[in-house]
Amino acid sequence: MADLKKPGEFDLIDRFRSLLKFRSPRMKIGIGDDCAVYSGPAGVYQLISTDALIENVHFRLPTTSPELLGRKALAVNISDIAAMGGTPHLALVTLGIPKTLPVKFLDGLYRGINAICQEHKIEIAGGDTTASPSHLFISITIFGETAKSQLVTRSGARPGDKIFVTGTPGESALGLKLLSSPRKQWKGDKKLQKKMIQAHLDPVPRLKESRQLMNSKAGITSMIDISDGLAQDLLHICKAGKVGAVLREEWLPRSPELERLTSLNKLEIMDYIMAGGEDYELLFTLKSEDVRKITSRFKNTKTPVTQIGEVTAHPQKVILLTIDGKSIPLKKLSGFDHFKSGKKPEKK
Amino acid sequence: MADLKKPGEFDLIDRFRSLLKFRSPRMKIGIGDDCAVYSGPAGVYQLISTDALIENVHFRLPTTSPELLGRKALAVNISDIAAMGGTPHLALVTLGIPKTLPVKFLDGLYRGINAICQEHKIEIAGGDTTASPSHLFISITIFGETAKSQLVTRSGARPGDKIFVTGTPGESALGLKLLSSPRKQWKGDKKLQKKMIQAHLDPVPRLKESRQLMNSKAGITSMIDISDGLAQDLLHICKAGKVGAVLREEWLPRSPELERLTSLNKLEIMDYIMAGGEDYELLFTLKSEDVRKITSRFKNTKTPVTQIGEVTAHPQKVILLTIDGKSIPLKKLSGFDHFKSGKKPEKK
Repeated sequence: MADLKKPGEFDLIDRFRSLLKFRSPRMKIGIGDDCAVYSGPAGVYQLISTDALIENVHFRLPTTSPELLGRKALAVNISDIAAMGGTPHLALVTLGIPKTLPVKFLDGLYRGINAICQEHKIEIAGGDTTASPSHLFISITIFGETAKSQLVTRSGARPGDKIFVTGTPGESALGLKLLSSPRKQWKGDKKLQKKMIQAHLDPVPRLKESRQLMNSKAGITSMIDISDGLAQDLLHICKAGKVGAVLREEWLPRSPELERLTSLNKLEIMDYIMAGGEDYELLFTLKSEDVRKITSRFKNTKTPVTQIGEVTAHPQKVILLTIDGKSIPLKKLSGFDHFKSGKKPEKK
Repeated sequence: MADLKKPGEFDLIDRFRSLLKFRSPRMKIGIGDDCAVYSGPAGVYQLISTDALIENVHFRLPTTSPELLGRKALAVNISDIAAMGGTPHLALVTLGIPKTLPVKFLDGLYRGINAICQEHKIEIAGGDTTASPSHLFISITIFGETAKSQLVTRSGARPGDKIFVTGTPGESALGLKLLSSPRKQWKGDKKLQKKMIQAHLDPVPRLKESRQLMNSKAGITSMIDISDGLAQDLLHICKAGKVGAVLREEWLPRSPELERLTSLNKLEIMDYIMAGGEDYELLFTLKSEDVRKITSRFKNTKTPVTQIGEVTAHPQKVILLTIDGKSIPLKKLSGFDHFKSGKKPEKK
């Protein structure tokens, strides 16, 4: 099988280009010049974000597939655009490729990238393809837009706002744990386990839900995507808005599969819900008078949207109120940090 | 000294932010949210480009300084904007950082980034800061603009156009060779050697010259920056424009220092001029009726701008006409490829 010793950089770029199908009407010049060139409509904000996935830090080759890795590399970036209330249009893909990586793997990676780009109408406008001395790295920059009136940042939360979350955070972290300890005797149906692993390897960016929120005309005062964990990302919102927050344990949405598996394997479900990370759910605050607009709109949607707490005026007090009446600072429950631990915390 | 085991990702981001001084009027939201947000004037093209520098592929820690590395990481990206006739405004910086790298190194890197950003009025609008299992990598995405009437691509060269180059290509490649073989008994003044090494470690993007070209209103029909080598990059222009080219050896600008050092050390200067790479000079084609506009404008500038050949109608024939009347296909003289050799060719 061909490997990277054979095709040169320019051959690879041609190869990747042929795997990418979506073309954006915004592009004037795509792959193949010194820059990509585009023009957007007047009166919008341009949104730009970048996220890298590095082998043995964010993923391991034996526990993912190239297609899923390509999808996830885009998904985590799309999620950042969704978190600002925007729509993605373009992305740049930079790869650092170890010489030993088979070209077949790269083809799979680009098939995954192409699939998620077609789903969300994103054109790959260029990038950089280079050798890497040891590990694979993928650095993606994404470009989106939002109407100036619809921009949502991290910093607008005000006391009295209600706190909401999409989906059921925590599954991705358990998926990672399942992948990281394959030899452990895990209890529970393989199907349930597979669902957790899928949540980790193939997260769904909440672009559709973000658009529904924007279209609802409800007063979304701040929003973030949960990449560092529910606790940590709520701390980001509180810090940016100089506010406090009270979450209620009894209101937190629980995935039935996560509940079953954590209970069977004697794990603390709250660790996964609060500190899991890589959920890519949306966490947002909403003016209290608009709560009904949101709850009615998301009543029967596949992805639940759940009120989990309230913003307060006390920046020093960002807490979880437990079912048995205790008050725990979110800092104690906050997510992992690649620098500090290299992996997710198992127990607080 | 503090190292990466101590500060976490968020501390590092705060630290980097404090080292960055330039703020662009185009930014609505810079570092610290899910996306950076900006808006540009109507009627312009947005230019985006990305280039990565990877340890032991593009640089070696023992032979550069963190400040120069930071400067170069930006410079190679600024050069891409210059090559399209544009002006850079913003950049995103992604770092994959080995745990053993001292924080002092990162501070130096950001001082270099800050310095070149202040020189060219570029705001660092965000990025991603993550751990790397072994090597340092730096992936930068740059954003610029150009008036729609001033966009210059690779693909506009037409038969009869004259071919020009800024500066004196080849020095950077000799600088790399000096750095790569420090134990060799190099002949020639240390000062000359230093100049070559500086050309490699601290290349100057030709943004000023690009603006002068645009302001001249001369018919620049295509442009590229020389990153892969003069021969290879002219091949890119010819392929994109479906044209051929004849370069004349006697017209090629020769750096006196490069001439002296290659001659003293019995190296073939043409290898360096034609295949060197990483010169970041501008290579462009010009309508023949506008030659005087350009030669008179650049008559007494510090950076020479030299006519080196002519575009022809024969895409199969991209050649160098040597002083002794031979005709050599540029493919035989073309630049290096990180994938194929891992380093620059010494002799053709």
